[in-house]
Amino acid sequence: MLNTPKNIALSPDGSAVRIIDQTLLPGKLEYIELRDREAMYEAIRSLRVRGAPAIGIFAAYCVYVLARDYGESEFFSRLDVDCDYLISCRPTAVNLSRQVERMRALARSMAGERTQTIVGALGREAEAIHGEDAAMCRSIAEAGLSLLHEGDTVLTHCNAGPLATSEYGTGLGPLLLAAERGMDIKAYVDETRPLLQGARLTAWELMNAGVDCTLICDNMAALAMAQGRVQAVLAGCDRMAANGDAANKIGTSGAAVIAKHYGVPVYILLPSSTIDMACPTGAQIPIEERDGEEIRSLWYARPMAPEGVKCWDPAFDVTDHELIAAIVTEKGVIRPPYDVNLKKLFG
Amino acid sequence: MLNTPKNIALSPDGSAVRIIDQTLLPGKLEYIELRDREAMYEAIRSLRVRGAPAIGIFAAYCVYVLARDYGESEFFSRLDVDCDYLISCRPTAVNLSRQVERMRALARSMAGERTQTIVGALGREAEAIHGEDAAMCRSIAEAGLSLLHEGDTVLTHCNAGPLATSEYGTGLGPLLLAAERGMDIKAYVDETRPLLQGARLTAWELMNAGVDCTLICDNMAALAMAQGRVQAVLAGCDRMAANGDAANKIGTSGAAVIAKHYGVPVYILLPSSTIDMACPTGAQIPIEERDGEEIRSLWYARPMAPEGVKCWDPAFDVTDHELIAAIVTEKGVIRPPYDVNLKKLFG
Repeated sequence: MLNTPKNIALSPDGSAVRIIDQTLLPGKLEYIELRDREAMYEAIRSLRVRGAPAIGIFAAYCVYVLARDYGESEFFSRLDVDCDYLISCRPTAVNLSRQVERMRALARSMAGERTQTIVGALGREAEAIHGEDAAMCRSIAEAGLSLLHEGDTVLTHCNAGPLATSEYGTGLGPLLLAAERGMDIKAYVDETRPLLQGARLTAWELMNAGVDCTLICDNMAALAMAQGRVQAVLAGCDRMAANGDAANKIGTSGAAVIAKHYGVPVYILLPSSTIDMACPTGAQIPIEERDGEEIRSLWYARPMAPEGVKCWDPAFDVTDHELIAAIVTEKGVIRPPYDVNLKKLFG
Repeated sequence: MLNTPKNIALSPDGSAVRIIDQTLLPGKLEYIELRDREAMYEAIRSLRVRGAPAIGIFAAYCVYVLARDYGESEFFSRLDVDCDYLISCRPTAVNLSRQVERMRALARSMAGERTQTIVGALGREAEAIHGEDAAMCRSIAEAGLSLLHEGDTVLTHCNAGPLATSEYGTGLGPLLLAAERGMDIKAYVDETRPLLQGARLTAWELMNAGVDCTLICDNMAALAMAQGRVQAVLAGCDRMAANGDAANKIGTSGAAVIAKHYGVPVYILLPSSTIDMACPTGAQIPIEERDGEEIRSLWYARPMAPEGVKCWDPAFDVTDHELIAAIVTEKGVIRPPYDVNLKKLFG
């Protein structure tokens, strides 16, 4: 069984959702229990729980925990208010609204039944959502591991691990599965400026799972590949276009260009729900640009550049499909040409 | 005249060397005066003065300032002790020992003359060393600027500016010269992890000189080039092999690979004394590997990764000559094939 702490669970008596407070990592592993909707909202907002799938799972448990307190007469009115409130926390987070709406629809479909029955069904539905994500991650990990070999060292970028999903994660799944099976697969971990998800979260998760990992600055990956230290690049994906262009954390495309130059394959691991067949190419994916404060001040808010310096702070980039050696989803490994093969599977 | 603060000078009465304390930048522009050899040693050691040429110039002034206090009978014995002491501070810094030895040789060549005469000559020699560096930087800047065009935006990596040399610097020279002439040439500035010389020093120098500059994380350069925001990459060099392979701050080679992918030319700017014709290729250049604390703890010593995480911390990398569009020295612009053309000029 995977030796990574469970990031989301119900408290033993079911009255609260219990999560790892990710803002305290890697310095401190602390669990917090959320009982009221304001605390739940704040936990998402402040990134105490983060990662699109993890937020969806968390919100499903929240709906269950909150519903336990509703009286018979007020059940559906309070359910609507709370569901809308949770969704409003991060309106662009697809998984959040998808899972909350799934919980709401289940409850609505049981209108007329006893409150206790509906609440019980909601609890089982949240567990099901959680279980489905874990199974999907497991499938991605298995398919991804089929691309690696005993003795390989891979490069990771950002955090696509258990903290962001459940159990195996996406991009990190093959590494965790390999460790579980006693295989020797090592990792270089890009620290992933500006928010350092690699240094703070990926390194922590891999160390916990017993994966031999080495932290580097993003700009060291080229030397690592030039010296033959890396046999594959593993990355997750925020949104994939129909031609295989992959939007992911800023820095992914640069690592992919460098990998191609040095003949290192790039594998993108993602749930198939992240493939947007309505989006023809990466050029149609908007890139979020942030305000640069995270560049100027690093993680701990100490100024690190001249006051007033202009910054450009794109949060994501698009990796051209020509740089991607294989795409891995819970349905298996997909090879080029992606425009044809993605359409066959998901068109 | 260039609007950048003078990083090294004699105090008005000649009794001290006056430098910008670079460890306080960019937060604070503070000058300190060094009078005794222990303080001079510490200033180099603690990177209050940094950059190979700047250290050489600084040390030359130090020899002059110290020699002013020597008595007639003890002159050469004290000179030897102090010169050896200064050189011992950074034994691998070529410019440091070169300039100190030049000062010592001048004094020795004047043995028999009055102390006051020798000291006067040492003062003029230090000024000459400083002036020669400034003239060389100016030539590099002129040659580099000939490669750029009105309206261009360049990418810089690390710090190869006035703080590291005198006046124009090497890699930054064309930008400063362009600003002086009212040309519109902008810059994206790689922050340059782990020690953030780009964020702390380059951004500060360019802003001071009125160059329109935008700070980015190293891993954002690929997106900037993909979007057509960058027309050239400018970098300095720590050591160049006879075939044009260029060892420079970690991250330079990755930026060069990405630039080649996107059709952006890479220009390496350096004094010809940095070209090591006895070193056939970059494979013979050893890469300094540091202890990783600067990755784990960032600049301000707050832990930023799990305790005990393994790090790989190469300080430099080698940019393959095939990735370099032109090499710029004080003697002008050199184009490929470098093995032939460097030999013609410097063989």
